[in-house]
Amino acid sequence: MSEHAIIGVDAGGTSTRCVVATLDGTVVSRGRAGGANQFSSPDPAASLRAALGEALDTAGDVRVVGAVFGMAGASEAGHARAVETAVQAWSSLGLPGEPYVTDDICAAFAAGSVAEQGAVLIAGTGAVAAYVRDGTVAWRCDGDGWLLGDEGSAVWIALRGLRAVLAALDGRGRSTALRERLAAALEVAPGEREGVIAAAYSRHPADLGLLAPEVAAVAREGDPVARGIVAEAAEALLASLAVAAEGRLGTEPVVLAGSLLSEGPVAEAVRAGVRDRHGAVPLTANEGALGAAGLALRRCGAPVEAHTVLVGGASSLPESR
Amino acid sequence: MSEHAIIGVDAGGTSTRCVVATLDGTVVSRGRAGGANQFSSPDPAASLRAALGEALDTAGDVRVVGAVFGMAGASEAGHARAVETAVQAWSSLGLPGEPYVTDDICAAFAAGSVAEQGAVLIAGTGAVAAYVRDGTVAWRCDGDGWLLGDEGSAVWIALRGLRAVLAALDGRGRSTALRERLAAALEVAPGEREGVIAAAYSRHPADLGLLAPEVAAVAREGDPVARGIVAEAAEALLASLAVAAEGRLGTEPVVLAGSLLSEGPVAEAVRAGVRDRHGAVPLTANEGALGAAGLALRRCGAPVEAHTVLVGGASSLPESR
Repeated sequence: MSEHAIIGVDAGGTSTRCVVATLDGTVVSRGRAGGANQFSSPDPAASLRAALGEALDTAGDVRVVGAVFGMAGASEAGHARAVETAVQAWSSLGLPGEPYVTDDICAAFAAGSVAEQGAVLIAGTGAVAAYVRDGTVAWRCDGDGWLLGDEGSAVWIALRGLRAVLAALDGRGRSTALRERLAAALEVAPGEREGVIAAAYSRHPADLGLLAPEVAAVAREGDPVARGIVAEAAEALLASLAVAAEGRLGTEPVVLAGSLLSEGPVAEAVRAGVRDRHGAVPLTANEGALGAAGLALRRCGAPVEAHTVLVGGASSLPESR
Repeated sequence: MSEHAIIGVDAGGTSTRCVVATLDGTVVSRGRAGGANQFSSPDPAASLRAALGEALDTAGDVRVVGAVFGMAGASEAGHARAVETAVQAWSSLGLPGEPYVTDDICAAFAAGSVAEQGAVLIAGTGAVAAYVRDGTVAWRCDGDGWLLGDEGSAVWIALRGLRAVLAALDGRGRSTALRERLAAALEVAPGEREGVIAAAYSRHPADLGLLAPEVAAVAREGDPVARGIVAEAAEALLASLAVAAEGRLGTEPVVLAGSLLSEGPVAEAVRAGVRDRHGAVPLTANEGALGAAGLALRRCGAPVEAHTVLVGGASSLPESR
């Protein structure tokens, strides 16, 4: 006899991840494919279909009774299009009903907390802070992309690092070890101003986020310029979080998600800032697809415990303060 | 009998301009074509050929005895390629000899001063400060493009304006009249956060400089946020100038060039800054093509007076201080 199961999908700009779980919160299979951001990915529906297909192929004999898709770019103006893409992928696999489509921000929150509402701060390639309530984004701060915002994100840090290198080379800024480190990362000889510029412009700006770990490493070694950039990044992230949470930090859970907040000097500074300024102990989000699956369980009436099992007990409930 | 003449060319990213002048500094004809920046224009040699051809067609009976091409992107790593492009266009028209190729920065300086050396600050779509000596750039500051620098330029101002609008909309920043003004310029309803973002990302970042006059206008009307952006832009430009000129301001001419420094609040703040901090009265550059022609006259041994006539007497010599 087939077992009832739900599906959680986390669709971002560079990858799509899918999990199938039973109603007690046990993951039975996973799928993965390329990006499914309707604004930047070449074929979002195909990526969704591929990730879903892979997960279903290995799930065994299950009957899907619910699904939540957390999709980048699915808020406000992009919602209708995201739903259309999700339904198209869903139907093409002959699955029953329709998936519930929400923002990937909600999936990130649900991957770190089983609470109905709270704040979430995500910092990876991009950066956004939000207040989430009942599986939807009630207020968001930033998340405006590499050109107009994402303050404190990996791309933001990389751009500041590159600007500091160029300022050091032409005399506007102070000397910094970033000069050697970022030139090496871009495969340019140190001191080659035009080489650094040409290498940076030859990449898509969103891909420059790959340089952020170099800035973090140089900060760790004590370089004052790199340390300043890391401190500014943490400050910008904390400022967005404070506005998004509107003074509710300390009473409601704060979830941190994204590569920049999992480890390293930015993560440490943000954690310390949340504790010192708001008296809250931040929670660490598990994978977004697990958060989406957690929301799917809740929508099916599964108990909080199933959601807790799914995203990993220890970090999913507010710690003692 | 044909008259001896020289040619000056100013080749930028969006347009190429050419003038033909006699050895006494009289302009006899002009030509104009699309951009000829080897890094960003589709066919730089074709643009150069078109501008040269138009000017020569209407020059009457002249014998060309010299030419200077001031070309964007012709410094350092880009020099050899710029020379190749210039020679290709030059030869295809059957012109004798070869043009002398330099940076458009040197042409801008020579369009504002007949001195052998001095400082130049250019702020239009982009921004760069330089110290120029004998027709070449001895030191440059910034000019690093829309992603990595051009601090204080029109694009830099526009991006700061757009970020201020988004920060006002999500609560990170204070309220500003830029919200209505920039939304209108982008043909988006005021308050439509996602509309502003979509409109901004749909343009090439370098084209966003067209929004800078809106920021200047809002600053004029007293909006504190817009005034802050204008003040920061002037400060950044003055900082680049000070580094490029290495303390020589006040004893050597300072030339201002580019749309942002011809009129408006940024121009006023920069002029006041140069006077107050360095005791120098800035000169205003005429067209870059006239500056290139001035350099061509000097290279042919024509007297300073011919260069002065060419670029316009009043503004071309240092004013009394």
